[in-house]
Amino acid sequence: MGDENLLNILQKESETAWKTYIPHVSIDCVVFGFHESALKVLLLKIKDHDQWCLPGGYMGKDEEIKDAAGRILKKRTGAENIYLQQFKVFADINRSEDFFEDYPDDLWHKQRFISVGYYALVDYTKVSTAVDNLSTACEWMEIDNLPEMMMDHRTILDKALITLRRQLNYKPIGYNLLPEEFTMPELQRLYEIILGKTLNRGNFYRKMIGYDILVKLDGSRKGGAHKAPNLYKFNVDKYKVALTHGLKEGW
Amino acid sequence: MGDENLLNILQKESETAWKTYIPHVSIDCVVFGFHESALKVLLLKIKDHDQWCLPGGYMGKDEEIKDAAGRILKKRTGAENIYLQQFKVFADINRSEDFFEDYPDDLWHKQRFISVGYYALVDYTKVSTAVDNLSTACEWMEIDNLPEMMMDHRTILDKALITLRRQLNYKPIGYNLLPEEFTMPELQRLYEIILGKTLNRGNFYRKMIGYDILVKLDGSRKGGAHKAPNLYKFNVDKYKVALTHGLKEGW
Repeated sequence: MGDENLLNILQKESETAWKTYIPHVSIDCVVFGFHESALKVLLLKIKDHDQWCLPGGYMGKDEEIKDAAGRILKKRTGAENIYLQQFKVFADINRSEDFFEDYPDDLWHKQRFISVGYYALVDYTKVSTAVDNLSTACEWMEIDNLPEMMMDHRTILDKALITLRRQLNYKPIGYNLLPEEFTMPELQRLYEIILGKTLNRGNFYRKMIGYDILVKLDGSRKGGAHKAPNLYKFNVDKYKVALTHGLKEGW
Repeated sequence: MGDENLLNILQKESETAWKTYIPHVSIDCVVFGFHESALKVLLLKIKDHDQWCLPGGYMGKDEEIKDAAGRILKKRTGAENIYLQQFKVFADINRSEDFFEDYPDDLWHKQRFISVGYYALVDYTKVSTAVDNLSTACEWMEIDNLPEMMMDHRTILDKALITLRRQLNYKPIGYNLLPEEFTMPELQRLYEIILGKTLNRGNFYRKMIGYDILVKLDGSRKGGAHKAPNLYKFNVDKYKVALTHGLKEGW
């Protein structure tokens, strides 16, 4: 099994796929996690190739598309009820041409696919990654140090990041990427990475407190040389109400 | 030809469609135009039905998806190079079940379709609408006075409007909806309709001038009882640069 090459595995998968899934429609997921002050994405290394790819898959003939995305991610992360957001369709005619050039034409995977991009936000601490029979590794990679990726997967990833930036003020992005309890510097760092720029600490603190969406907890973050920073959590109800109007101020 | 019922026409179209288009993928377009201080959308009335629908169609096997959307819109509006923005995929399993319930199962249109939503912004004055053999009318409808719509088309339209609102600060929405020359009250009215709220005239003027994206013209709008308001046009280069960073302030 482990010695089979990629084509053999794809050909077996192909037979089932033609019967099971809606043809021409695929799903690619950009899974974001926040860990040790870095924003990371979950990537797979493809068997017999040096390139990496996004976790992806197909939609069952009688399956809702969001359920399909959830199923694909559960297989890869073990996590359920992941925060998922559809963000764009990738449909270029030649998007997989080079990759599948030497493969037989009736292979499911070689057909023209319109791929629906989802981004997912996960609590890094709750995820256990898993390879499958098409991949030799499944790893978290920092967004500013990405490996070479197959097909248009780098374009999909970049677009997800731009979307995350634009949606920071009206989607529960902090809530889904941070652990339940966090410090203000951790929250600020997350915003800085997503926005791609440094923010003034005082202004950030004032705006965040001004939104009235955080609850200050009794404890503080232990360890470290400096004064231990206070811990906060989101007031989920207030946060959701605030997001429906959008957090008004620019950053 | 005019007496044929909808099923007959669809059945003929179906044969060609199976050969020409990518199965399971459709395109629906929400075409916005701004006229007489109102935001309007282009709708078609379906033959043999009381409901209206969005202009839509399918993607050729060797056609880029954006070209397909452009082709569909050209047929309907006569206009080329329309500003088009993909905004969401609509894929619910049962989205067309009721509508096609009594139709034969092998009909192309009765398959499960994943519809890619595009919004289009057109200069109202440059569009000439056209019915086709599936419709009995093609009209501009005000967004706050919409007729009953087929399938999930109202959902698609509402989502387009929300997207327009969120993208107002980083897509050239004013530029594409207004005629080349416009007054500040006209620009403000467009923003008010899209945002769904009244804006303070002085603040709006100051912000817009502050962005440095408008060019004041020599002429003014003729006619009307009041002092004729000045005419402006966009400085397209500056506008585009400003949008890449996003117009910073909330409204």
